[in-house]
Amino acid sequence: MPLLKSWVESANAPDAPFPLNNLPCGVFSQGEDEPRCGMAIGDFVLDVAALEAEGLIALPGGPLLDVPFWNEVMAAGPEVWADLRGQVVALLKAGSTKQYLVEDHLIPLAGVTLHLPFLVAEYTDFYAGRHHAFNVGTMFRGAENALPPNWLSIPIGYNGRASSVVVSGTPVRRPWGQVKGPDHELPAFQPSRRFDIELEMGAVVGMPSEGPVTVEEADAMIFGYVLLNDWTARDIQAWEYQPLGPFQAKATATTISPWIVMKAALEPFRVSTPARERPLLPYLHEPRPMLYDVALEVALRPEGGVETVLSRTNYSEMYYSAAQQLAHHTTSGCAMTTGDLLGSGTISGPTKDSRGSLQELSWGGKEPIALKDGGTRTFIEDNDTLTLRGAARGDGYTIGFGDCTGQVIPALADPYKRT
Amino acid sequence: MPLLKSWVESANAPDAPFPLNNLPCGVFSQGEDEPRCGMAIGDFVLDVAALEAEGLIALPGGPLLDVPFWNEVMAAGPEVWADLRGQVVALLKAGSTKQYLVEDHLIPLAGVTLHLPFLVAEYTDFYAGRHHAFNVGTMFRGAENALPPNWLSIPIGYNGRASSVVVSGTPVRRPWGQVKGPDHELPAFQPSRRFDIELEMGAVVGMPSEGPVTVEEADAMIFGYVLLNDWTARDIQAWEYQPLGPFQAKATATTISPWIVMKAALEPFRVSTPARERPLLPYLHEPRPMLYDVALEVALRPEGGVETVLSRTNYSEMYYSAAQQLAHHTTSGCAMTTGDLLGSGTISGPTKDSRGSLQELSWGGKEPIALKDGGTRTFIEDNDTLTLRGAARGDGYTIGFGDCTGQVIPALADPYKRT
Repeated sequence: MPLLKSWVESANAPDAPFPLNNLPCGVFSQGEDEPRCGMAIGDFVLDVAALEAEGLIALPGGPLLDVPFWNEVMAAGPEVWADLRGQVVALLKAGSTKQYLVEDHLIPLAGVTLHLPFLVAEYTDFYAGRHHAFNVGTMFRGAENALPPNWLSIPIGYNGRASSVVVSGTPVRRPWGQVKGPDHELPAFQPSRRFDIELEMGAVVGMPSEGPVTVEEADAMIFGYVLLNDWTARDIQAWEYQPLGPFQAKATATTISPWIVMKAALEPFRVSTPARERPLLPYLHEPRPMLYDVALEVALRPEGGVETVLSRTNYSEMYYSAAQQLAHHTTSGCAMTTGDLLGSGTISGPTKDSRGSLQELSWGGKEPIALKDGGTRTFIEDNDTLTLRGAARGDGYTIGFGDCTGQVIPALADPYKRT
Repeated sequence: MPLLKSWVESANAPDAPFPLNNLPCGVFSQGEDEPRCGMAIGDFVLDVAALEAEGLIALPGGPLLDVPFWNEVMAAGPEVWADLRGQVVALLKAGSTKQYLVEDHLIPLAGVTLHLPFLVAEYTDFYAGRHHAFNVGTMFRGAENALPPNWLSIPIGYNGRASSVVVSGTPVRRPWGQVKGPDHELPAFQPSRRFDIELEMGAVVGMPSEGPVTVEEADAMIFGYVLLNDWTARDIQAWEYQPLGPFQAKATATTISPWIVMKAALEPFRVSTPARERPLLPYLHEPRPMLYDVALEVALRPEGGVETVLSRTNYSEMYYSAAQQLAHHTTSGCAMTTGDLLGSGTISGPTKDSRGSLQELSWGGKEPIALKDGGTRTFIEDNDTLTLRGAARGDGYTIGFGDCTGQVIPALADPYKRT
């Protein structure tokens, strides 16, 4: 599919993240306005709530857009999703006769505040990157026992904390937690010294389900995708995670990009999961490609310093797709809900410079990473800003997600002091 | 505290579960009525929504009660909780001059449908029963390595699935899942053959928090307690739970009792957690007793058969209190929300007949449990009904929770067949 040309000129550049092919969904406000639904186009946000109010957009069951979340559209189902895209494309395409009616509802992105684009119902995080699992397993158990026995059969997941999900730009306070060094008999309670990122994509569930669903049905339930940073305190994780998995190590914050890229925008970029190393059970078979070719990068900027790109990888490195993960999630009869968020798991590539966490990049802190301005990092230092970026590159256009960024601010001096 | 006498005579019997001292919070409907808030008294539900509409109950920020959940009251805070109790006690106590105004709003419990009493925001389950952890650990790792190294320092918890929470009486369908026998090379996808219960109490979070809270602050945030059955497929759990914890094994259903017993009703029954076997970090210190003396039992009834009580134990067997668990839950800065539900973890006592799961009672299936009608059980069979009961016994009165019950219905023949 080539670029869909728009009369919004800034949307037509080959490297512009928000061409008419994209139309990602966000929630924005301007000044003291109430937050409401918008879609990004070029250098602007299109105030679709206003267009709906004026009758230029009309959706079955509407109004759905003058609310500070996309959940109502998400719950309305795939036909409404396609209907909305079709109406907005008609309004914004080059030559549209409605341009003069729409122009007033384009607001420069530089002047708006972006909010969490949807109400997160529940958050599940997976562990589905082959290279990440191998790297982490090697550090903990040696290369020969790196992959857990179930890893090639189950898209391993665990429930995360929905209240931890924040929008890009929200500062992230370094957490306190229980940690225990190998030479200590008792644990200590202290600020995390090994605070890390995990580069992930998040799948946003639009349509709910009650019983088990197939991979094809799961794919149809997904509304779109975001970038996701699963902030992790490695020292807290190491002491707490056995036997029941990560808990407080991953509850401080989970940052997502401000824009949900709808599945329709990613259709041209579908790719297959890699060859299976062990046969999958039939309920996990993919009837067609379910992953996406999305180039990803992680960057770190020290306070007042220059940015260093630490890693470049691709979403297609995953061993399991979000549709497979969602299908597995429902096997027990677990009900899925509009607004459920599924983290892909850390996306590491096969090479050292394509690893999706500092733990892997610095090999557990043993190999400091060089920064452009001369410093080094093992884990995150106070006031560092970490940014994830993603782009699917098409024929003369780019599908972007917006930066997924967060600055780590110092831990509280005393978390229990009440003023 | 002695019995508070009520003009509702059925509330005054020493073994009646719903005396005026209790006043638990539920959501009920009658016929085609809309579900709304009610409180149990004797053999009746008091229609507090109707009393509020008539001005006999007035709450700050009200109306709060003509909704199908208690979350609005829960979010209003401890002063409103006490205010509500005080107003209802004044209306129902023996000698109340308002009796003639209230009588019409007593509806026989036998004629109402009870619904989930609150909207579950997020669900966290813990692993805080000393005997349960020892029993399970012994089965998996031998008695010498039974307790994980962190167990005596951390109230270990993991995030569960809020969408799994259902009210007592909801049938529970036996799940399908991935299982792998020790002699098989590849896993199979089949209905669970080792479906089990876990006897727990649930703490219901009323007031939200943003940063870390102390144990005392955590206790103040708790609105009340329910009985909780954390249904678990042991065969699915065994294959999936390493390294990131239970997932689909516990996502089929989590049944809670229909009544939230407010913390105020349990005050006379506060008891301390047991002596610490290893010193706790200061953030987990309890300033006063935070557990409760609540007698608990598990019963099993085969379809058409008689009931056998399988186990009798007490909530005071826990090593960590809900307040300690909630304080730990916030250490990372994890925000807690009105409607969060915290499962205590399985409550097993020190003796064989006080174990809180079939896995423990049948020692992993090796020691079948005798039933009254001559049969035996290792794990749950189709159409068995499992019931949890709880009671705090005071000076001439009893605080009950209502039965927490569920019948296990057969697995779907083919979970992916669409009709």
